[in-house]
Amino acid sequence: MRTVGLIVEYNPLHNGHYYHYQQSKKTTNCDAAICVMSGHFLQRGEPALVNKWARAEMALRMGADLVLELPVAYSAQPAEWFAFGAVSALDACGVVDNLCFGSESGDIGWLDAAADALQQEPEHLRLLLQGELKRGAAYPAAFSRAVSQLVPGAREEELARPNNTLGLHYLIALRRLGSDIVPQTITRTKAEYNQLNITDKQIASATAIRKLLFEAQTLEGIGPFVPDYTRSILEREWNAGRAPINWEKFARPLMLQLLHHSPEQLAGFHEVTEGLEHRIRRAIAELPPLTGGAVVEGLLDRLKTRRYTRTKLQRMLMRILLNHSKQQLAADVLREGVPYLRVLGFTENGRKLLKRMKTAAKVPIVTKVTDGISPLLDLDIRATSVYALGYDRPGHRDLFRDYFEQPLYIASV
Amino acid sequence: MRTVGLIVEYNPLHNGHYYHYQQSKKTTNCDAAICVMSGHFLQRGEPALVNKWARAEMALRMGADLVLELPVAYSAQPAEWFAFGAVSALDACGVVDNLCFGSESGDIGWLDAAADALQQEPEHLRLLLQGELKRGAAYPAAFSRAVSQLVPGAREEELARPNNTLGLHYLIALRRLGSDIVPQTITRTKAEYNQLNITDKQIASATAIRKLLFEAQTLEGIGPFVPDYTRSILEREWNAGRAPINWEKFARPLMLQLLHHSPEQLAGFHEVTEGLEHRIRRAIAELPPLTGGAVVEGLLDRLKTRRYTRTKLQRMLMRILLNHSKQQLAADVLREGVPYLRVLGFTENGRKLLKRMKTAAKVPIVTKVTDGISPLLDLDIRATSVYALGYDRPGHRDLFRDYFEQPLYIASV
Repeated sequence: MRTVGLIVEYNPLHNGHYYHYQQSKKTTNCDAAICVMSGHFLQRGEPALVNKWARAEMALRMGADLVLELPVAYSAQPAEWFAFGAVSALDACGVVDNLCFGSESGDIGWLDAAADALQQEPEHLRLLLQGELKRGAAYPAAFSRAVSQLVPGAREEELARPNNTLGLHYLIALRRLGSDIVPQTITRTKAEYNQLNITDKQIASATAIRKLLFEAQTLEGIGPFVPDYTRSILEREWNAGRAPINWEKFARPLMLQLLHHSPEQLAGFHEVTEGLEHRIRRAIAELPPLTGGAVVEGLLDRLKTRRYTRTKLQRMLMRILLNHSKQQLAADVLREGVPYLRVLGFTENGRKLLKRMKTAAKVPIVTKVTDGISPLLDLDIRATSVYALGYDRPGHRDLFRDYFEQPLYIASV
Repeated sequence: MRTVGLIVEYNPLHNGHYYHYQQSKKTTNCDAAICVMSGHFLQRGEPALVNKWARAEMALRMGADLVLELPVAYSAQPAEWFAFGAVSALDACGVVDNLCFGSESGDIGWLDAAADALQQEPEHLRLLLQGELKRGAAYPAAFSRAVSQLVPGAREEELARPNNTLGLHYLIALRRLGSDIVPQTITRTKAEYNQLNITDKQIASATAIRKLLFEAQTLEGIGPFVPDYTRSILEREWNAGRAPINWEKFARPLMLQLLHHSPEQLAGFHEVTEGLEHRIRRAIAELPPLTGGAVVEGLLDRLKTRRYTRTKLQRMLMRILLNHSKQQLAADVLREGVPYLRVLGFTENGRKLLKRMKTAAKVPIVTKVTDGISPLLDLDIRATSVYALGYDRPGHRDLFRDYFEQPLYIASV
């Protein structure tokens, strides 16, 4: 059973994801797929539209054989750590043959060359990066500019495209881990990563789909762009008061955290860097009403400068909401890679993979969650609790669902 | 201008309070009244029904001349510290001639004798108290039992009545402060302190009035029991989404605090004593839905034992919600008495009192609030922010109202 690894958020799973899934299996000639999926908090520092169990179910219904959770320690990180965490999970499985990712480029050649160059000259890159940052560029721009100077043939505007950047980091991670996994890439078509407008009859970005759904406050319009199961799973969660979730649902918990921490204490949270703690304190004193649907929006507006991307600031607020300290997410901790593989769901094929992984996997496989398995898993348990505070009527089975919920099993699709 | 001091919560101000106010001035032969009023969090560990500015307005409309805020450090304390804080505020004014409090007894004689005895034999009392506590009694019961053993003629069941207990502590506080204020007491009539049922056509306890109003979710029924201004002020606040407030409005913020603190960290909060931190962790794992209106209720049920009164546990949860540490509210801090007098409102007569207080007061008078005036005032500013999280649509002027709001001035009534 040849197996391809996919790194996903499925927020929500749409036709473009299905296309990528099919193409990935075909291109790599694999008959099984493992998804490493972010839990409740995502790479751009946003809560997921719907909880991780619902999104794992979508993945299984699509045809994925095994869904593993990317710990929140990695899932809401800049491209570098996000990629490293996700690739380390695929590598730790011990059964993954290929990694297939979507990119704007669709050409593994120059990305691979760039990854090689960066691995060989990390110090040179560091200096170039530093120079760009000093000139006041935000990190992602500084990174692509530095790399384009270092790597012949790597064009800055190509590097700056989000999926190319992620792809490059996947390739670097594979090298750092000394992994045998063979990477491939597929051109992303039709919809750009966070394109807001819908330009195709069947393919729209997850961002556009979420916008559609929040603006209309109904699932009516998303039908053409998502598989039927996505729609029915969303419908079920919506009716149960567990969706749709966005940042605004956490306006009050976030405000409580901001109120209860002095600037000095705020500076102890992950991503609160370079005096941002003082900017935050000033910003909260002039916010719009907490239920106007624009608080986190308003906070971000007041925090934004040329130096910080919105994404960086969102991730920072998320770490404050989740109470994640710099210490808990120190580079020394993250550099170890994921310390366990948390199973969210599997198919019959997935059961066979899990059986092989019993001996092949490089870290423990977790199907029953309890406290103390790993500090990172403890963070995930609490992230679920905080996420559930965004529900309409959260009960203790929502708040502590990680303890109760068995991995989802779907025989086949 | 002879001045009587009243210690109040006005939650909300009702006909019984008005009666007490009139009788107090008459009995003491005073022509002005100063109210020391609790801010947003009250003695029994509950948030006020409506914010402190609205309640100060009620007090002024009733005829009070000056309303001072009792800091949250004292307002949500056991009788001993509550009484000490409030009496220290009246004493610090330097212009108060009498203190007049309601009691079930109505007889200052035996209360005074008891206060004398307790002041003379603190060590004996301590030992008796310790004995009672060891036998498993909750604090209030242990206190009245110990005092009844120490003081001839002080009957345990009389001492155990809440307003007698408070009164006794007022008298003790006056002695500890060496105050010149002359105490008097008036019999509470018609409605007991927290009597739930209404037994009179015009007088009902504040507890009964709140019950009426929360159950009916309207102000319709309270008309007979409150002055017109109470009703119209409540109506205004209700329509603005700022009332009615109860514990359940803080279910999610409280839960966030409970989730984000380990048992060891919980033990650092004021009133989290004797291993209660572990009971809390166990209790939150089995709560009903957070919006069912019974979360804090459910939590209290699970925490309750013979040893802890509901009030003690409520106060503890309140300190957790407000993020008040043992250190911030240490006995050494509280023993100093209130370090400032915060003016919430005044009448023309009150203006004259304030003028006299400029020279007579023993601590600074605060009419314009900023950070850093006193650590206790900083706690009050943040308590307002947390309280405002209970509003329907809290904006920054609600969250930080202490900075914006001038003392309320009402020429006369």
